[in-house]
Amino acid sequence: MSDESAALPSAVDIFDTTLRDGSQFEGISLSVDDKLRVAEQLEWLGVRWIEGGYPQANPKDAEFFRRAPTELTLSTAELVAFGSTRRPRGKVDDDPTLRALVEAGTGTVCIVGKSSAFHVTEALRADLDEGVAMVADSVRFLKAEGLRVFFDAEHFFDGMRADPEFTLRILEAAAMAGADCLVLCDTNGGSLPHQVGAITAQVVAAFGADTRIGIHTQNDTGNAVANSVAAVLAGATQVQGTINGYGERTGNANLMTVIPNLELKLGVRCLPEGNVGRLTSVSRHVAELVNLPPHPADPYVGASAFAHKAGLHTSALGRVGSVAYEHVTPETVGNTTRVLVSDLGGKAGMSMKADELGVALDEQAAGTLSDELKRREAAGFVYEAADASLELLMRHATGWRQPFFRVEGYRVTTYHRLPSAAGIDPLDVEDDASVDCEATVKVWVDDERFASVGEGNGPVNALDNALRAAIRHRYPVVDDLLLIDFKVRVLDSSSGTGAVTRVLITSTDGDRTWSTIGVSENVIEASWQALSDAFVWLLAHPV
Amino acid sequence: MSDESAALPSAVDIFDTTLRDGSQFEGISLSVDDKLRVAEQLEWLGVRWIEGGYPQANPKDAEFFRRAPTELTLSTAELVAFGSTRRPRGKVDDDPTLRALVEAGTGTVCIVGKSSAFHVTEALRADLDEGVAMVADSVRFLKAEGLRVFFDAEHFFDGMRADPEFTLRILEAAAMAGADCLVLCDTNGGSLPHQVGAITAQVVAAFGADTRIGIHTQNDTGNAVANSVAAVLAGATQVQGTINGYGERTGNANLMTVIPNLELKLGVRCLPEGNVGRLTSVSRHVAELVNLPPHPADPYVGASAFAHKAGLHTSALGRVGSVAYEHVTPETVGNTTRVLVSDLGGKAGMSMKADELGVALDEQAAGTLSDELKRREAAGFVYEAADASLELLMRHATGWRQPFFRVEGYRVTTYHRLPSAAGIDPLDVEDDASVDCEATVKVWVDDERFASVGEGNGPVNALDNALRAAIRHRYPVVDDLLLIDFKVRVLDSSSGTGAVTRVLITSTDGDRTWSTIGVSENVIEASWQALSDAFVWLLAHPV
Repeated sequence: MSDESAALPSAVDIFDTTLRDGSQFEGISLSVDDKLRVAEQLEWLGVRWIEGGYPQANPKDAEFFRRAPTELTLSTAELVAFGSTRRPRGKVDDDPTLRALVEAGTGTVCIVGKSSAFHVTEALRADLDEGVAMVADSVRFLKAEGLRVFFDAEHFFDGMRADPEFTLRILEAAAMAGADCLVLCDTNGGSLPHQVGAITAQVVAAFGADTRIGIHTQNDTGNAVANSVAAVLAGATQVQGTINGYGERTGNANLMTVIPNLELKLGVRCLPEGNVGRLTSVSRHVAELVNLPPHPADPYVGASAFAHKAGLHTSALGRVGSVAYEHVTPETVGNTTRVLVSDLGGKAGMSMKADELGVALDEQAAGTLSDELKRREAAGFVYEAADASLELLMRHATGWRQPFFRVEGYRVTTYHRLPSAAGIDPLDVEDDASVDCEATVKVWVDDERFASVGEGNGPVNALDNALRAAIRHRYPVVDDLLLIDFKVRVLDSSSGTGAVTRVLITSTDGDRTWSTIGVSENVIEASWQALSDAFVWLLAHPV
Repeated sequence: MSDESAALPSAVDIFDTTLRDGSQFEGISLSVDDKLRVAEQLEWLGVRWIEGGYPQANPKDAEFFRRAPTELTLSTAELVAFGSTRRPRGKVDDDPTLRALVEAGTGTVCIVGKSSAFHVTEALRADLDEGVAMVADSVRFLKAEGLRVFFDAEHFFDGMRADPEFTLRILEAAAMAGADCLVLCDTNGGSLPHQVGAITAQVVAAFGADTRIGIHTQNDTGNAVANSVAAVLAGATQVQGTINGYGERTGNANLMTVIPNLELKLGVRCLPEGNVGRLTSVSRHVAELVNLPPHPADPYVGASAFAHKAGLHTSALGRVGSVAYEHVTPETVGNTTRVLVSDLGGKAGMSMKADELGVALDEQAAGTLSDELKRREAAGFVYEAADASLELLMRHATGWRQPFFRVEGYRVTTYHRLPSAAGIDPLDVEDDASVDCEATVKVWVDDERFASVGEGNGPVNALDNALRAAIRHRYPVVDDLLLIDFKVRVLDSSSGTGAVTRVLITSTDGDRTWSTIGVSENVIEASWQALSDAFVWLLAHPV
């Protein structure tokens, strides 16, 4: 684009801090194995730097750096160890953080130092000259160890607003001591893009083109992405962020958004050519690894990012094509267009969806389906996230009945008996070995009746095992079915434990993945519906 | 702040479109009652305009406008009905959309018209002059009906990049016909803040200070908030957005973020004085109404927005105070600081948390607790969202044992028998009346044994009823306990239905709200733990 600033670089280095800052996100707790697997994803994506952790503060991070050289194969990315400047009034030679950084064995380290006068005098209880010396000494020490050193200027933007002279003095001390990148950190996340842009431009002008400037933002004003891009427009060439924006409080800059904004909108290269198409896969894989549900509304990579619902849009989509309503082609980032069915979608949407699912829907079947969908949506079914159940419902509307098995009934019981007959405090019980679960399922395949028992560590697991046992002889393929996600949602919270629940199950056979739904006041029955649909879909789609 | 643009207005009008654009969000389906309750929240918050819906396209929206005058009391806010310009090659007099707008009975309407040449010729199959006439005729017609008319220029920013002459012609036609506000819409959400800022400035310069300019953004590049603020910095004085950023695909501008950014960071008045403190409450209440879980990482209003976890920060928080690590005072927006306990938090965090929960934790108890927390976190417990269970665990570490009841055991069974003995297709069954659920619970209170049966529409409900029945005679207060949220999460998806599940329950007694957790391979047992903690917490905190 012709209207961008002259300072816009042609490429930036992506510095991922998912394993350090990202692990501060509420709900994330990574094992060393998890960290190694996240690092593999980052290498595959093609980021330049992977900040692996804070070895002095966290024994798990130290272990990560010990195991990484033998267990990780990196070619595009390099590991970075994180630490802080030396202690106030201390010496660099016996500083535990600096020693841990050297011992981490990475060629590059990143150290954080306070660049706001307020934080030096109040949080560190040091005078300003000591604040400067801590930075200069630490960078010089690490450079003398032969390391590449990135300096994270903590509270940089707050410092620039309060006492710019001191804050710039800190940057200068780091640069003079040999820092290879000066990273401007909006630690509290309170800055707005026009402020970040102006201040970054000031730094770039002050230090000249030979000094690499980095940007590290937090999302406290909802501007972590915009602030990162504003800094790049002003000349920053290292961008720090995390997969899916994980990070303390409101999170860090979401690299899944920053990268396509820079590459696709501004022509700034971030990843090896073509790798931007891996973003959706990496986003979802890492969500799985850190055990958090992917956020459907995330830009570019979310399941809803290219989902179309309104009648207005879906009818025009059919006529004009997606270029009219999609700001980029979803496939560019590894995502896809989805058509959503709902009471707002109208006939055009429903018939596009039927085509997508391979169901031939005539006028009459469409009418039947539309009535049935209305009834079910009113009851709490939401087919937007359960394509496999929707497909079965569409087939049902055409008159199809699943021919595989017919269920006569099931029963499932959970028993819990505490060791002491008089009862003991559950907090004193080390495990729940005294809980037992058993299910029976009775089904017919053709004119043969099968009654099976399943045990399990939970009622859905027991039902799953009982149903498999009942039909396995006739359908050995069910042994390939694996449930990989199981979500439960209480629909009408005000009814308390008696509320309607919705269960969504995602299943796989190793090659394909499909999602099914069940809704009932009984979580077991809702699970059963979703489970049964999962088996039927598999049987209806032989490989 | 002194460094803002001269164009920055001192106040803007907030235009909320949660009930129209927001209802396009995947998973939202609002009844007319829901809509009325959302509108009450918007009035209480103090927005200037509430877009109630699209009466011609949606019968529920038409009903909303019929019921609103008698069922809603508005003083700060006014309702707006939404529609589009007349049909191509049609007449205004018999246009159903324009007629529905007049019949909606609001004093103000908002109509959308295409302002991109590509969409006029390709989506509407009209020539460019007809595109202009559609806008001019429609605005003129509605003004002649005595209405205030806002004109939403659809695909405005894409149009300005492709064919600015035509796009500005459309705006001019709307202005000449009497439109009261020209709203610049980034319909596909593909624009970046520096582009929105520059183009908005161009429009403000072209139309002068007497023409009100609005901004309507979508979050497809993660910049809906930044783009809204960029437009206000360039002189826009109406900001359209939604509660919690609900909206199609990646959502609309999140007013919960835009409003405090404008009010607290830039001094631009958006709401009646003091109302910014209602944002957190409105955000969570509306999430409840639309039945979506609040997003903890949301700026300003999220449960994690002011949560501190890392040892570094929590120890400094104790010493310097929150001003060092919080970009605004949480109470300003109705939120609060939270201290999180985790393996990263260290002793300072744990003792601050104990103070917050009112538990006196000595050195020895802190050690016991720390070991127990590590063991439980490894098993899947996450106490960040379950303060009540954490408090019980802390009390337990001090030697306290709950004296209220002791559980001997429970049993819960779900039966399902289909009407026909040979089984029928579940899709042909209209309801699940054939599902039955029964629980028995055996507890001791002092030396008295109670064995009770509970029925319920689900196993947790049956257990809940059985436990209540068992202890009600001795603790009548349990009748006040109401479960208001019930979340289930599969922790290790790769184990299929046999995975460990985590249950989080939020309970209330009408005045107070508390959250408890249970973790087990059995969803029933995990629910039981959380349920039992909920009862114990209530009994341990008599009013």
